[in-house]
Parts: sequence; C-alpha cells; structure tokens
Amino acid sequence: MAATIIDSGIFGNIFSTDAMRAVWSDENRIRHYLAFEAALAKVQGRLGIIPQEAADEIISVCDISKIDMAKLRAQTERIGYPVLGVVSQINALCRDKLGEYCHWGATTQDITDTASVMQIREALDLVDADLIAISAAMANLARRHRDTPMIGRSNLQQAVPVTFGYKMAGLLSAIERHRERLAQLRPRVLMGEFAGAAGTLASIDHGAMETQAALMQELGLAQPVIAWHTIRDTIAETGAFLGLVGGTLGKLSMDVKLMMQTEVGEVYEPYAHGRGSSSTMPQKRNPISSCYIHAAISVVRQHAAALMDAMVADHERSTGPWEIEWIVLPEAFCLLAGALKQARFVLEGLEVNEAKMRANLDMTNGLVVSEAVMMGLGRYIGREYAHDLVYDICREAVRQNRPLLDLLAANEEITRHVSQDQLGVWCDPANYLGQAGVMVDRVLALVKS
Amino acid sequence: MAATIIDSGIFGNIFSTDAMRAVWSDENRIRHYLAFEAALAKVQGRLGIIPQEAADEIISVCDISKIDMAKLRAQTERIGYPVLGVVSQINALCRDKLGEYCHWGATTQDITDTASVMQIREALDLVDADLIAISAAMANLARRHRDTPMIGRSNLQQAVPVTFGYKMAGLLSAIERHRERLAQLRPRVLMGEFAGAAGTLASIDHGAMETQAALMQELGLAQPVIAWHTIRDTIAETGAFLGLVGGTLGKLSMDVKLMMQTEVGEVYEPYAHGRGSSSTMPQKRNPISSCYIHAAISVVRQHAAALMDAMVADHERSTGPWEIEWIVLPEAFCLLAGALKQARFVLEGLEVNEAKMRANLDMTNGLVVSEAVMMGLGRYIGREYAHDLVYDICREAVRQNRPLLDLLAANEEITRHVSQDQLGVWCDPANYLGQAGVMVDRVLALVKS
Amino acid sequence: MAATIIDSGIFGNIFSTDAMRAVWSDENRIRHYLAFEAALAKVQGRLGIIPQEAADEIISVCDISKIDMAKLRAQTERIGYPVLGVVSQINALCRDKLGEYCHWGATTQDITDTASVMQIREALDLVDADLIAISAAMANLARRHRDTPMIGRSNLQQAVPVTFGYKMAGLLSAIERHRERLAQLRPRVLMGEFAGAAGTLASIDHGAMETQAALMQELGLAQPVIAWHTIRDTIAETGAFLGLVGGTLGKLSMDVKLMMQTEVGEVYEPYAHGRGSSSTMPQKRNPISSCYIHAAISVVRQHAAALMDAMVADHERSTGPWEIEWIVLPEAFCLLAGALKQARFVLEGLEVNEAKMRANLDMTNGLVVSEAVMMGLGRYIGREYAHDLVYDICREAVRQNRPLLDLLAANEEITRHVSQDQLGVWCDPANYLGQAGVMVDRVLALVKS
Amino acid sequence: MAATIIDSGIFGNIFSTDAMRAVWSDENRIRHYLAFEAALAKVQGRLGIIPQEAADEIISVCDISKIDMAKLRAQTERIGYPVLGVVSQINALCRDKLGEYCHWGATTQDITDTASVMQIREALDLVDADLIAISAAMANLARRHRDTPMIGRSNLQQAVPVTFGYKMAGLLSAIERHRERLAQLRPRVLMGEFAGAAGTLASIDHGAMETQAALMQELGLAQPVIAWHTIRDTIAETGAFLGLVGGTLGKLSMDVKLMMQTEVGEVYEPYAHGRGSSSTMPQKRNPISSCYIHAAISVVRQHAAALMDAMVADHERSTGPWEIEWIVLPEAFCLLAGALKQARFVLEGLEVNEAKMRANLDMTNGLVVSEAVMMGLGRYIGREYAHDLVYDICREAVRQNRPLLDLLAANEEITRHVSQDQLGVWCDPANYLGQAGVMVDRVLALVKS
Repeated sequence: MAATIIDSGIFGNIFSTDAMRAVWSDENRIRHYLAFEAALAKVQGRLGIIPQEAADEIISVCDISKIDMAKLRAQTERIGYPVLGVVSQINALCRDKLGEYCHWGATTQDITDTASVMQIREALDLVDADLIAISAAMANLARRHRDTPMIGRSNLQQAVPVTFGYKMAGLLSAIERHRERLAQLRPRVLMGEFAGAAGTLASIDHGAMETQAALMQELGLAQPVIAWHTIRDTIAETGAFLGLVGGTLGKLSMDVKLMMQTEVGEVYEPYAHGRGSSSTMPQKRNPISSCYIHAAISVVRQHAAALMDAMVADHERSTGPWEIEWIVLPEAFCLLAGALKQARFVLEGLEVNEAKMRANLDMTNGLVVSEAVMMGLGRYIGREYAHDLVYDICREAVRQNRPLLDLLAANEEITRHVSQDQLGVWCDPANYLGQAGVMVDRVLALVKS
Repeated sequence: MAATIIDSGIFGNIFSTDAMRAVWSDENRIRHYLAFEAALAKVQGRLGIIPQEAADEIISVCDISKIDMAKLRAQTERIGYPVLGVVSQINALCRDKLGEYCHWGATTQDITDTASVMQIREALDLVDADLIAISAAMANLARRHRDTPMIGRSNLQQAVPVTFGYKMAGLLSAIERHRERLAQLRPRVLMGEFAGAAGTLASIDHGAMETQAALMQELGLAQPVIAWHTIRDTIAETGAFLGLVGGTLGKLSMDVKLMMQTEVGEVYEPYAHGRGSSSTMPQKRNPISSCYIHAAISVVRQHAAALMDAMVADHERSTGPWEIEWIVLPEAFCLLAGALKQARFVLEGLEVNEAKMRANLDMTNGLVVSEAVMMGLGRYIGREYAHDLVYDICREAVRQNRPLLDLLAANEEITRHVSQDQLGVWCDPANYLGQAGVMVDRVLALVKS
Repeated sequence: MAATIIDSGIFGNIFSTDAMRAVWSDENRIRHYLAFEAALAKVQGRLGIIPQEAADEIISVCDISKIDMAKLRAQTERIGYPVLGVVSQINALCRDKLGEYCHWGATTQDITDTASVMQIREALDLVDADLIAISAAMANLARRHRDTPMIGRSNLQQAVPVTFGYKMAGLLSAIERHRERLAQLRPRVLMGEFAGAAGTLASIDHGAMETQAALMQELGLAQPVIAWHTIRDTIAETGAFLGLVGGTLGKLSMDVKLMMQTEVGEVYEPYAHGRGSSSTMPQKRNPISSCYIHAAISVVRQHAAALMDAMVADHERSTGPWEIEWIVLPEAFCLLAGALKQARFVLEGLEVNEAKMRANLDMTNGLVVSEAVMMGLGRYIGREYAHDLVYDICREAVRQNRPLLDLLAANEEITRHVSQDQLGVWCDPANYLGQAGVMVDRVLALVKS
Repeated sequence: MAATIIDSGIFGNIFSTDAMRAVWSDENRIRHYLAFEAALAKVQGRLGIIPQEAADEIISVCDISKIDMAKLRAQTERIGYPVLGVVSQINALCRDKLGEYCHWGATTQDITDTASVMQIREALDLVDADLIAISAAMANLARRHRDTPMIGRSNLQQAVPVTFGYKMAGLLSAIERHRERLAQLRPRVLMGEFAGAAGTLASIDHGAMETQAALMQELGLAQPVIAWHTIRDTIAETGAFLGLVGGTLGKLSMDVKLMMQTEVGEVYEPYAHGRGSSSTMPQKRNPISSCYIHAAISVVRQHAAALMDAMVADHERSTGPWEIEWIVLPEAFCLLAGALKQARFVLEGLEVNEAKMRANLDMTNGLVVSEAVMMGLGRYIGREYAHDLVYDICREAVRQNRPLLDLLAANEEITRHVSQDQLGVWCDPANYLGQAGVMVDRVLALVKS
C-alpha cells in the first residue's frame, strides 16, 4: 500500500490523476529506457557503428513485457540505479551475445535523462490539454457573464462593481500567458541526452555526433548543443513553470472559496450528492476542489525551489543534486495534474448565483457607487464640493442604514440639479462597470481557438 | 504502479523504508481511524453517554479486515474525505442500528488529526530508533578514531590537523541535541483531537470533557487544552524537527562525499559488490548513500516550509491549509527515513583509510603545521619574528616543493635554538591536535547509553 | 538609501522595528566583536595566557567609537570578512604592539559566531517581550469575550456557534507553546564559539579549555561541548522557531482579514485617522496590519528553509552555507519583529463588533443551531427521526427564507412535545456553545503571569 | 545603520551592487511614481480628460527634489502606503488646486505596480549586462581552453578526461538559454498598470482605454490586456528567472570551490593581496567569491517560491500576497546582482593551472584512460576479452602503484599486437577527449556577438 497521498488508493484520484501517475510510473520509465536503447541500436546499426544483426536483435527484445521487474528492483537496490539492470536484462535476452552492443557509448545518465525528458513531454501534453480546457471553460464563463455585475473587492472590502466575466477574464489572461510560456520552453526542455561518461562521447571513436543527431531525431527530441548532465536549467525551468501555473490555480481557488462563503454565496463548486454537504449542518456547502487545489499548489512551489537547488551540481555528473529531481519532478507534475483536474471540474460546472451577486452589490445601501454619484454630481456642483457632500450623505446612510439613493433624493442641493431617475441611473451598479466588458473582449480575442 | 519515488517498486527502498511507508499507508491510517472509533465507543459506553450495548457492538466491528477498501475509495472520491465512509461502513456492520452511536460527537477532523498523531508517534519512534543507532555508530567512530589525525579543512583548503574522531564527535553533538529536541516536542505534539464541528464539543450535552480526557488516556495521547483544528504549530514543529535532523545528515553526506573524492580518498562508503563501481572505470568508488541522503534532505527542508504554510489556517476548520499536511507530512517522514537508513548504512560500515589521511596531512610538505612551528619558535626568537621567518620558509618550501622540516633544519637561525628532533616533533601533525581529543571525550560523555 | 524594505526609510517601520534593526546593525555587530575581544583578553590575562598589561590595553581600546567604519568597509571588501579588519584596528590602537595579543587563539568565525549568538540573545529577548504582550492581549480578549457568541466557520461555511473568546484562546494556546519552545531552545542556542582555525584550539598550548570556559562565563553564554563552526543545528532551530511563531501570526491575520470583510464585519483593526480608509469609497475599512503580517511571515518560513540549507556545511569551516545565515538570520528576525509589532497593534486595539457577530449568527435563519434542535428533539421522538424531520424543516426554511424557529413552532409533531419557549432556547446560538467557555478557562490557566 | 546584509555599510558591496541597490532605493521608487503621475497628466491633458493647464502644472512639480521624504515616511506609516502621500505632496506643490487633477482615475496599486515594472526593467537591464559579460568571459575561457585536458569527474570520482573549455562551454550553454528566457519574458513582464480601484477604470467616464494606451506608450511599457492587480504570474515569472540564473551561478561556484581544493588545485579565484589568504596558514588560497555566490543564490531560490506564493491573491486587490512582492523582489534582484558581480570577477580573472590539471589526470596512473585502451585493444583481440584483460591489468596497476602504460607494455598478449608508441598514444588523456572540442565549438557558435 502506498504511503504518499499521490499513490494512495484512497486519495490518489483527489490529488492527482491516473494519466499523470501513469507517465511517472516505474513501468513507463522502463518503457522509455527500452525505447532509448532500441533507438540507439537502430541508428548505430544504420551508421555502421554496431552490426546490423546486433541492432535488430536488441530492438526485438526491447519490450517492457520481457523485463523482470522484481529482479530489476533487486539490481537497483544493489547498484543504486536501474539502468544497468535493464541493460543487463536486455543483454541476457539477446542471442549470441549480440546484446553486448546495447547501450553502446551511452552512460547511465544519458538514458535516465532522456527517459525523463520523454516523460516530461507526455506530462506537458497532459498539462497543456488541461490548460486548453481550463482556458475554454474560463472563456465560456467570461463570455456568458461579460455583463453580470458583482462587487469588486479590494482588501476584502467591497470596493466598486465589476462583472463576473471580468473576474474570469483576468485569470484567463494568465492561462494564456502560461500557454505561451509552455510553447517557449518546449524546444529548450525537450532535448535528449547522449553524451557518455563525462559528456564527451569519447568511447565512440567515430560517428559520435552523427549518432547523437540521429538518435534525437528518432526520439523526436532536440539535439543538445553540449552535454547537460550537470547543466540543469531546463529541468528547473520546467518546475518553475509548474509553480507558476499552480499560482494561477491558487488564485482561482482562493476566489472561489471566498465567494462560496455563507456570507457571500456568489458561486458554488459543482454539486454532487454528498459532496461538501453535512448531515447535521444543512446550511453548509463546502468548497472541496478549491481546498485540494490550494494544498497541491502550495507544495508545488516548494518543489520549484527544490529543482533550482538541484541545479547546483558538481562537476560532470553530480552527487545528490540530480537525485533531487527524481523525487520532486514526478510529484510536482502529479500534484499539478490533480490541481488542474480539480480546477477544470470547478470551472466546467461552476454555479453562478447572479441574484446573490446583485444582492451583495446592494448590501452597503449604495455606497459602492458613491464614486459614480460624486463624479456625476461634480459636473453640476463642482468635483470637490460633490465629493464632500456625497461623502457626508454616505456616512448618514450608514448611520441610518438607509439606501444612499433615498438620501440623495431627499437632498435639495442635489435635486435642484438632478432628477430622481438620473440619481437612480448613477446608483445602479450595472451602470458603473467602466471598461470591464471591453477588457473581457480584449482577453477573449487572445484565446487561440 | 506508483508514480512517486517513495512508493516506487524500484526506488522505494532507496529513498525510504518499508517500516515508515507502513506507518503512512492507507491501511494503517484506517486502522487508526478504527482504533479511535473503538476507543471513543468504549469511553462513551463507560461514561453512559452511549448504550454499553452499542459500545460493545461498535468495538467488535472496528477491525481493518472488515473494511471494504475499494468502496472506501469511491466514497472518498465522492465526499472528499474518507472518515465518513469508514463510519458508514462501521454503521453498516453493526447490528440493530447500534452503529448510529459510532463517532458520537466527533467530527471528521477529530479522527483524522488523532490518527495522524498516532502515525506521528509511530514515525517518531522509528526516527528515534535510527537516531539512537546513528548516535551509537558515530560514538564508535569518534571513540575509535579519537586520535586518528587527518587534515582539518577550512574553505575547502587544508588548514590545520584534526582527528577523524573529532569530525564524528561534532556531528554526534548535533544528533544528541536532536534527541533532546525530540524528547521536548513529544509531549506537545502527541496530543489527540476530539472537539466536534467547530471545536466546542457542543453536540455532546454532558460528559464532553470527561469523554475527551478518557479518550486521550485510552489512546495514550495528551489531552488538548483547547481544540487545535486550525492551530497547527505542533504539526509544523514536527516538520521543522525533521528538517533539522535532515540538515545534520546532509552535513554528514557532504563530508563523506568530499572525503571519498579520488583526490582525497580518506573514507569510503561500505563496499558491496557492484555498488558504486564502474565496469569501464576501475578507479571509481562512487558515493551512493551520500547522494541519496543529500537529495532526500534537500526536499525535506522545503516540506518543513510547506508545513509552516499550513499553519495559516482560516477560522475553525480550514480550506486547504490542512490538506497541505496530508501531502507533506508522510513524505517528509518517508524521505527522512530513507536518509536515516542510508546514514546508518554509511556510518556502521564506513571504511576509514588512516594511511590516506596521513598522506594528505603531508601533501603540503608540512605547511599545515607551520602555525605550530611559529608558536614553538616564538618562545625562542619572539613571536612576530618567528612568524615572518617561518612564513618566508614556507614560501620557499612551496617554491622548491620540499618538506618544510628540511628547510627549517637547514636554517641556522633556527638550529641555533632548536634541535632537529624538536623540529620533527613540531612538524608532526599528530602533535598539533589541540583539544580535539578532549572535545571528543566531552561529546561522548553526553551520549545517553 | 536602502534597497530592502526592512531598511527602507519609508517602509522600514511597517515591516520591522527600530529595536530589531538596531540588534542587527553593523554597529551592534562590531560592538559585539569588541565585547568578545575584550572578554577574551580579560580571561587570558587572568589565566596568564597573555600579559596582563596587554589585556588591560586591549580592553581599553575595545570601544565602538574608536572604530573607523569607512576603513572597515574597505578592509572587508578586500578580505571578504570584517573580523580581521576590526582586529587590525584594535591592534593599531594599542600602544607598544600590545595589540598583538588580541584575538589570541581565536579564528574569524569564533568571533563572528559568538557575536551572532549575542545578537540572537538580544533578538530573542525582543521576540519574547512581544510574545508576552501578545499573550496578554489575547488573554484579555479571551477573558472579555469568553461568552460572546459568534459563528464558528468550517470550510468558510457557517457551522455552529463558538465564542470570540474561544477563537482567541486557540491562538493563545499556540503562543504559550511558542514561549515554551523558546525557553527550551535558549540553552541550546545561546552557546558561544571559541575554537580556533579548525575547531581544536590548537594554537593555544595551555589553558585552552579554561579560556573557553571563562570566556563563555564572561559573556553569559553556554560553553560549547565541541566546536560548531559547521554544526549549525542551533541556528537553523532558531530560524524554525521564528517560522513557527510566524505561522501563528499568519493564522491570526487570516482570521482578522476574513472577519473584517464587508460581508462579515465582526472585528476591525484599530482605527486611526486615514488608516485603511478611502476618500472615494466610504464603505471601506481596510485591514492593513494583517496584510503586512501575512506578507512578512510568508517570507520568514522560506528563510527557515534556507537556514536548514545552511546546515549542509563542508568540513571544518564551510564555503558558502555559513554565509546563507548572514543574509537570512537578520532578515527573519527583522520581518518577524514587524509582524509581531503589527499583531500587537491589532490585538491591543481590536474593535469587536458583538452586534454584527450576533447578526451573522442569525443570518441563516437558525440553521446553524439545527444540530441543537435535532439533539433536543431526539429525546422525545428518537434521534434518527428527529434528524430527518429537522433536516426537512431546514430545507423548507431555506426555501421560504423564514426563521427555523417559526417553522418548528408551526409543526404539530414538534409542538406536541415541546413548548415554543423550549424551542426558543434550543434556537438561541448562545445556548449552543458547548465547552467553549471551559476551554477558554483551561487556556487562561496556562498563561504565566 | 542598516540591518540587512544587502544594505549593510560593511557587507553591502559583497552581497550586492550600488547599481542594483539604486534601482530599488526609496528615491528611485518615488522617482518612478512621479514619472507615472507626470506621464498620466501629460496624456490626459492631451486627450482633454484634464485641463491642459493642470497637466502642465502637475508635470512641472513632479520632481524628486521637491518631495519631503521625512514627511512621506510619516504619511506612509499612517496610511500604510506611500502613494497617497506622494500625490498629496504633488497636490500641495501645485498652484490653484490644479493638483486635484493629478492621479486622475488611478489607484494606489496602479502607480506602485507600474513603478515596480519600471524598476524591474532597469534591474533586468543590469542582469542582462552581467549575463553578457559572463557569457563573454565564459566564451573566452572556453575558446582559450578548448583543448586543455583535465579530468572529468562523475560522483566526485575521476572518470574520463574532458577539457576545461568543455566545462566552461556547458555553463555557457545555460547562460545563453537564460538570455533567451530573458528576451522572451520581457514583453510579458514589462507591462504597465492603469486600471483604477477594481481594475475597470470606471472612474474615467470617457477616454479610459485611450489614456491607458497612451500612458503605456509614454512610459515605454506594454499595455495590459486586462488589469493585473491580482494576476501576478509575470512578477512570479521574474522571480523564477532570477532563481534559474542563480542556479547556474551556483553550479559555477560549486565547481570553482571544488577545483580550488588544496588536493585539486586546478583553478583559483583571482588573487588580490590579502584576499582569501591566511597569515598563519600560508598554504591556503580560499575561495571567497564562490562562497558568496553560493549563499546568495541559495536565498534567491527561496524568494522565487515566495513570489509564487504571492500569486495566491484574493479578489481584485489582495490582502497581503501583494506585499510579499515588496519584500522579496528587491532582495532577489539585489542578491542576484551580488552573485553576478562575484561570478564576473571570478570568470574574468580566473587563474587556470594547466599543469595541475595535467598532473591530476595522471594521478591514477592512467586508469582514467583504461576505457580508451580497452577500445583500442578490442580491435585486435576482441572487445570483451580486451575489457577483461585491461581490467585485470588496471587492478594490478593500482596494487603496485605503477603506471598503467608500464604494465601494458610489459604484457606480451598486448605487445604482440600493439607497439609501445601506440600504447602511449592510447594512454595519453589528451587523445581521449571525444567530442569535447566539437561541443565547445557548437556552444561558441550560439553566442550572440
């Protein structure tokens, strides 16, 4: 039974996903080892570096179903790394000692790093798919609620009106930037490794660079300009990217949690029977996904720092920093995958309570539009005087707990200039949305379809 | 198959231990849930809060083998937490609806927190056992090598001699402080939780505090002075403790790695066939355990920060901060367990190459004892003059690549005062160890036997 | 002009305090260097290790006003450390080259570490004083509001009633544990350093341990059992302690921010003219101190991790890890001092709006006491039946937006057993506070007066 | 006097630079505030939103020399933010209340964020300049030492030869990627803010978007697609970038420290009188800059995590997360600036000891080329047989402490096929450099001139 929440039989699908766990499973790792060895044999056979017969034999045995995992575990615990165990199993599977040509010129870290990069490629594809889905869900909400007024909050205080679509569009703008970042980092990060013991490919006396180029082409990865066994900026960059995406999901979850408060009640996570309700407290409608998002991404950012720590590698092959990546990279991806899943779930089924949004807009008796009234009135009685007058009336409205509109309408200095209808227009939060809609449109225009 | 390195079938025993994983397994967590519910029923039956018949029935079904784990997983994914699923399964197992009295007055977090604390208790016992073993192994090395001279290094430069025992004793002093810290934090941390929905035990209309006291006594835990659902300093303190222990193991691993360098060769991790050697590079004797220690503890310290983050909880039951603990606490313990195991392995079988230590002491031709010579000579020719004279001779020794002793013995200003034998005594690093042995003895005297 | 927020002329008193900055100022650091050198001279004179005349002369010049700070800066930039510069200035100040006896047997790190520990002592005293003041302020609030009902919130949902005193008492319990931790770590942490180049005190040929013991007694510090130049658990422990205290302040600030929300309005940070108000948005009453607390402690916890990183030191004197402490330790203390100050300010002047607390209790029309009703009614009509009946009535109360009490009073199944008065008692949140008061008393009993 | 190491009069120029501190100084911050207000007045005057006369007056007083900093400090401590203080000072400086038109439609955070971005722009320019200089210095070393053989090390064990140029080229490849990252993030990050209280620009009733566009053009910043008051991915991205650059500098410092070890002696930090030497230990040549780099970047990565934490902002203007940036962003830049300066110093004056590199290559008696011998011999006697034979001879060479070449030359099985000259060629590490030179050339080709 698993000890980590990620692999837990009970919590695993809350904090991660099957698809992402599969990417980082032992089995998939070994599968990529085998893909590497097969591709290496193929190109080295073609280039005449190893006998074609050996290449064919090696390729034929590079099959995950032929690997004895229990034996591999024992080999790994003894040696400290699984690569040699895999190579020796391949070797044993090949006829006529042709397996001796397997792993030709490669070092343990070449295969480990390249497999990791192939796992990263798969994992980034999963992240990308979720980002696209989240972008679409946010775009839907932004579009649908482009003009749904709600209170904007500053310092957790009601400030001036915004729209719910505007709130979503802000988040969406970040998601689109994340997609841009992802597109920019892929060519840097998706780079294979084939460099030999100290990175110089010295044990291949001819065709070394040709092998490297062909191998990377075979695997669909960029050819490194130089060995990167201890130059780990691309891995740390990947972690930083996950941390950044996590930050945006964290902001989403924070707002959802706050809007779900009993005292606010503006949105709700999708309802499912038994989910987030209490058998004794019928008034409760707990955020669930948002909590998991918060927790997961709080850990991912610490992982991002740990991956930067892993960059401080010694010499040509490091003593410990590299292994930080082994621990952290799979977890960061798995936790982010869980957070992305929960975020999709929230966004795709979010219940938006427009009536409550409207009610909250009105709960300060109109004070949240006092700025609009000041501005409107300023045209007639001077800006500064209008400010002071309205400010005084606002205090009175608070004191008497009466609508601002009523007090404005009862003030002769004001009614001398402005009709009650006009006051009503100024006092309607829906008329004080500024450029919210324009900004929503600007963001939506960015979304790649 | 597992996605995390901790649960990996291949890497799991390198980065953690079976015993620690067992503590944090789903099964053990559920076992503690059941222990909580059984103990609660027991004391509530005794106090007359629930019928004794119900208590007996509940206790009889609180058995891990009766729990349907697959069903529990489905329940958890739906509800978001496993506790309700466990309670409903207990309920269903009880005859005559007596299970209705199960979980009486408790809330989900009571059982989750108390189970976590019981897991922490087991986990700390494992840590403690390893600390004791590590302390013993360090004490052995400190004792055995109390007077084994080696070069002390400052800024990675050879400075003046120390002994290998002194090096170990320094680490040992920290281990002993960790044991003191552990003893001090146990009574704070090993505190149960039983407080109800908002911590006030309101749903138990009589005998609430008596239940709490008796329940904690039953479970062998401290009674909380007040509910701590969102007061998480004790959990974060546990994480900080793990981070501190990790730091000491990291220092150990750093020194072992550095001393194992080809150019240094003073100690070696225990040899095992195939471990840390290379089939093509016969000169290599790789550190393995030290690398794993370095990686594991580098992650644990970030976990310690994450657990402090989890303290920023909202109101009476938090929305996400709590779940940070679910992710991080098991991992921090599992990774530290791996690091402790590797450290024990290294210390219990460490190969100490006294000859190489001695050779390294001599590699600067005696410059590392120049301070001793200055001091000795100062008594005869004045401290300052001695300093300048010896410093000049040292430069000459470097320039000519000759032993300092030879040049000193050839200097008439010196031989006028001091015999060659005396110079030899001053130039012997074994005679310039200061209080190294005394300090070793002081540390050894601290070790509780 | 300063670049950091801590030293900023504009922000400095928001994010830190004069007193804490003074502790970590260059001037105070140098003052402690001088105190160390003077004390060392004093004890070495007394022990006959250096001439009494030299001791007297050194002591007489160890005066901060005699140090040329500009020159010291230039020396430090050249050498990399300020200690040698200070020693050479002392030297130059002494007559007759008696200054040669200054720093006898000490190494740069001895004086730096010991000065740091003396700064830590002063800094911990400041922290302690603030903890005591915060404890007192919390105790006041807990006592005064022991029975002030407010809603308890779980998952940001209204759950069941608590009291405001209970909320404070929970925090107070953590503060008291922090004071216990502080008392426990002081004897470990407040330990001086005097060990020489590699920690063995080799350059003092007699009286080395006596010097160390007497020096530490002179400085009021514990004598180390062995050199700790690269054994840094006590420093990291100090950082962890600051991180833990920060976590508790973070929880306080989180709750204050949430309670200050326009939609909640239960407490307010102390009012000061112009503070946290807006000239155009009269409804706003911004949290200010709480925001600064949140920010400061979020950084302190990362500093705690950095100090654990600094433990991974190499050999007898490290190459970089030590300097992490130079950066981080002063900042962690300065930021925590700012957070403590802001927390005191908030707690000592907190405005508690009991009426709003009461109003919020009622905003769900009584649903937050449905558990009480279920329990009360269960005695008459059976627990399970009561649960289902009340649950149905609750839904109806939500649908009709009417008080639960009204619907209960209109239900004949209920009124058959229970009077309206009794229903009113059950529906009064003030009657459903469980052990809140008892728990407050338990915590208050712990506070050392 | 300053409390932080960054602002310390003694340490400040070791851990940071004057130029970077100037960027983040209070004065420069206020200068940017004034630039913002002046630019806003200018474009609003032009667009007819405020009177041209007011615009002219405001522009004329927006001068840092007119600001009373002491008063500003008092205002800030009272209000909590300095912007309002600056605006009120501008106001007071303007004749005829024309200052009322200052800050028109803007909110505190607009000006703060835009000023921060302008500071980031300046700070990134400094970083970029250092990256270019570091790139040039690395390229010089890579070019000059393209073919300087030294031992490659794996797991701190001597492995197979590389060149010093190859080692530099690996680092250089990362620096070039950092420059690419910087180029990619600039257009995202260098985006201004002008959005009003909740981001909708509602208080400007016409010309809002035109003002925003013109203002950003005036300031040379990108126009935001939507308000980003609480959408902070670009700031966190900046921190992550600094952390990544730091990681590469950390790897550089690690290798320099290791190569400077007494036992290795392959490179030295530039010598300056008194720097890194000891008056009593003449053999020492301490790394200094490398230690400072290590420390600084270890903190920067924690700052990167803190900036991701700051992304978890609430609603339209956050309560604390934003202020994390105020603390962390200046420090991260200042510390990285210090690390970059130290790295430049190291690289531009690095002493490379080719003779010691060569000597270290030979210290295993030729074992580091055993792979070359196996491969060469394999052509004559079969690969596997050659492997076993050479491996046995290697063990013998170790046992006898004799050069591998001698033992090979004495073996008849070998000399039957291969001349001593040929053996000498195989045993020369300079002939076993693989693609090191080719890789150096590939990296150098990337460097933008």
